[in-house]
Amino acid sequence: MSEPHFRRATAADLEAIVALLADDVLGASRENASPAVGQCYRAAFAEIDADPNQFLCVVEHAQRIVGTLQLTFIPGLSRSGTKRGQIEAVRIARDRRGGKLGEAMLAWAISECRAHGCSLVQLTTDKARPDAHRFYDRLGFEPTHIGYKLNI
Amino acid sequence: MSEPHFRRATAADLEAIVALLADDVLGASRENASPAVGQCYRAAFAEIDADPNQFLCVVEHAQRIVGTLQLTFIPGLSRSGTKRGQIEAVRIARDRRGGKLGEAMLAWAISECRAHGCSLVQLTTDKARPDAHRFYDRLGFEPTHIGYKLNI
Repeated sequence: MSEPHFRRATAADLEAIVALLADDVLGASRENASPAVGQCYRAAFAEIDADPNQFLCVVEHAQRIVGTLQLTFIPGLSRSGTKRGQIEAVRIARDRRGGKLGEAMLAWAISECRAHGCSLVQLTTDKARPDAHRFYDRLGFEPTHIGYKLNI
Repeated sequence: MSEPHFRRATAADLEAIVALLADDVLGASRENASPAVGQCYRAAFAEIDADPNQFLCVVEHAQRIVGTLQLTFIPGLSRSGTKRGQIEAVRIARDRRGGKLGEAMLAWAISECRAHGCSLVQLTTDKARPDAHRFYDRLGFEPTHIGYKLNI
């Protein structure tokens, strides 16, 4: 069986990515997965695509997009000038959850962050995602922080 | 009395910023605030300064740098294409803590994020910073997430 293939997303992937974002317990109320992908997603994609410190990734397997995540490479002064790799919007197709795809995606993400000079990887997960917490705990991530959000 | 002045940091501010980062219960062991600011900080500053989605801010008051924070503007697809403003490395000079400077800095940060098209502001704080938690709770931030980190 072929291996999953990781690559940078193109505009042609947008509909599949939005479908993954929406097929999620929290995403269902936040996303609009209508077949005609809205202008809000196209505009956001254009900004991501133009920024060399963003890597919106899709995972292809058997001619199908089965996962997505976004990396942001953040230069910073703190921790003696450590560059951080931030992971957002990790989603896996419903019928591929619970397998080894998540591990492969995180291993890819960590390797890509290292290649971009990061020595720290960070992410937040909603407190309402206990499965995700077990997953990141198992991979050695440390839940040292509280993640605050404010809609403005 | 004059108001604090918020502006983009320049290379000339680097020593003052690193001193603020180091004068912190967690930063003390992570930073090197020797007067000859190390190459690691200069290289990180150059990367921050070259990235239009980073805003490393210093707060000046009475001819002195009394605070710093870093904003990162992150375009993304999730939440219907919401752009996020991320706040990192918030520090206030020891003799100015407990006053109103923190509120002023967050108000400035939120306004700047809005001006950059963000509709969500996010940050993480170490679980070992209870004063910071009370501060962000008071400002209306919601502690909805767990913040994971992994050194790589």
